Amino acid sequence: MQAVLERWGGPLPLFEASRAELESLGLRRTAIDFIVDPDPSLIEPDLAWLAEEGNHLVTLNDPAYPALLREIADAPALLYLRGDPAMLGELQLAVVGSRTPTAGGRRAAYDFARHLGGAGLVITSGLALGVDAAAHEGALDGGGRTVAVVGTGLDRVYPARHRELAHRIAERGALVSEFPVGVGPRPEHFPRRNRIISGLSLGTLVVEAAVRSGSLITARLAAEQGREVFAIPGSIHNPLARGCHGLIRQGAKLVEQASDILEELGQLAGVALAVGAEGAAAGGPETGGGERDGEYGRLLDCLGFDPLSMDRLVACSGLTAEAVSSMLLVLELDGQVESLPGGTYFRTPHEEPQ
Amino acid sequence: MQAVLERWGGPLPLFEASRAELESLGLRRTAIDFIVDPDPSLIEPDLAWLAEEGNHLVTLNDPAYPALLREIADAPALLYLRGDPAMLGELQLAVVGSRTPTAGGRRAAYDFARHLGGAGLVITSGLALGVDAAAHEGALDGGGRTVAVVGTGLDRVYPARHRELAHRIAERGALVSEFPVGVGPRPEHFPRRNRIISGLSLGTLVVEAAVRSGSLITARLAAEQGREVFAIPGSIHNPLARGCHGLIRQGAKLVEQASDILEELGQLAGVALAVGAEGAAAGGPETGGGERDGEYGRLLDCLGFDPLSMDRLVACSGLTAEAVSSMLLVLELDGQVESLPGGTYFRTPHEEPQ
Repeated sequence: MQAVLERWGGPLPLFEASRAELESLGLRRTAIDFIVDPDPSLIEPDLAWLAEEGNHLVTLNDPAYPALLREIADAPALLYLRGDPAMLGELQLAVVGSRTPTAGGRRAAYDFARHLGGAGLVITSGLALGVDAAAHEGALDGGGRTVAVVGTGLDRVYPARHRELAHRIAERGALVSEFPVGVGPRPEHFPRRNRIISGLSLGTLVVEAAVRSGSLITARLAAEQGREVFAIPGSIHNPLARGCHGLIRQGAKLVEQASDILEELGQLAGVALAVGAEGAAAGGPETGGGERDGEYGRLLDCLGFDPLSMDRLVACSGLTAEAVSSMLLVLELDGQVESLPGGTYFRTPHEEPQ
Repeated sequence: MQAVLERWGGPLPLFEASRAELESLGLRRTAIDFIVDPDPSLIEPDLAWLAEEGNHLVTLNDPAYPALLREIADAPALLYLRGDPAMLGELQLAVVGSRTPTAGGRRAAYDFARHLGGAGLVITSGLALGVDAAAHEGALDGGGRTVAVVGTGLDRVYPARHRELAHRIAERGALVSEFPVGVGPRPEHFPRRNRIISGLSLGTLVVEAAVRSGSLITARLAAEQGREVFAIPGSIHNPLARGCHGLIRQGAKLVEQASDILEELGQLAGVALAVGAEGAAAGGPETGGGERDGEYGRLLDCLGFDPLSMDRLVACSGLTAEAVSSMLLVLELDGQVESLPGGTYFRTPHEEPQ
């Protein structure tokens, strides 16, 4: 589908293409059949869903499409979203882990999400049982916002017992899917869904994970996408710590407390975060401080007191979307920048020092 | 003292030196006073101790002085030893940690030492309460051997409740100290003692350690001495896991089971260890295989069916003592080489394949 958009800049001219041209794009047979001989009944459920309040479609070329997700190799062409579309442009941290965590693991997911959600990061997860649910709940209970990327159409909730949680998420964040209305849960959907969870996020935190689990797939995808991977260690007698220990051996950052993550995301952008005594480094950045200062200067020069989208800031500063994302997080936590619903940013008005 | 030995090749010519020459060597005032006007009563306790069976003095130039310890910057000039002096030439793993571990930490120290002691590594620790004691006991109970490096003269046992344990260690391994007979425990002795624990060993395993603890000093010394550092992770709610987590962040190898250590020491020497299914890597060495194979060939060429000391093997092969140590461990675990009490090595006689 990305090939289609690259060639024509949007889906509409497709309907004027020949079957041979469509086949050359590698489209699926069912998609070609629909394009050559459109049957409106096939998209009626989507259109009916879209007519409901709070439901949105976001295409790859839409300015509301999340910049970090657009960077990944197999970015979904279309996102179904229920809730606040501005969530997509917010700085996100993925929190994933076992569907059957220990009590300590569930608690860690909840506490980290509550703390980090309260600090301004959107907590993104997969609405699954266990760690996912604890992360969504922690973010909501901490007054933060959360995004659930699911493996079904958004007219359904899987697992069914998370109906109430899904409702809270749609009200205070967003439910997101690449699957059309009416699509049920299928095993092959979940690994696909995981690339969106990691792709939306600056980094992925793995709380508890067995060896060869879906959470490790998400972590691997995050690493392949050039994002940070964080893992919480545990007792060597806890089988659900094994996955995290394996990640740490492969280079994931070992984290003991939420401030470790804020500090790391801060260092990613080259400055020590002022996040309080607990997690703050005493000195400045270890390397590249001068250059980074220059990049911050460029970004701050682009920012004004009128809100700007991240895409505009990327274009203005000449920095990558990832760098701008993390620098905005740093500046926001530092009180120099504020964000508005809709994913726009402006400089915090300060009074002149006397 | 090392300066003395380097200039004269031994301590005896000192007694012909002038006070000015002695001062130029940076010797302590009390040592100079003794050399200029020797008072035999000062060394009588040492001589009386040395006359007892099982007690030994090993000087830096003695062939029995451990090769790995000789490599460190501030190697002790003299070691007092009670037990089997051949222990000094054996391949050692230091196991250190908190004096007040959790039940799980104590158990881990015991289990790792029991397993690794049984696999042929000498377990070296500091005779302290907690992790040290559990490591010595695990090694002994597993039929292995163990070395205790202490911070007092060897006529004393500190802490006193380890008298029985010290006795077992002297019978099945060795008690080692750089402090003369009659010296009691003093706080400044223990950090000094730690450099010997790490300096004797191929690597140091830290089991549980608080932030800013003596075990972390040992780990830092091991790293500075170019040795491996291993750390066992734990729950983020366990304060005694913090020190280990800090080490892992700084590059220590995260270990979950004893085979992780055998595997790592094997990779150190460039080959995958055949240590059974649990810890064995499937393939060969990842890098430098060809060169390493050549080094193994050189070492095996030096080895015959008559036992040779490690010093002889170092001289013959032209490799460093550290490389020879770890390669001998690998070859020993692989069944190609056997060692004898006294720290000598020979090729295992194999029947020709039919």
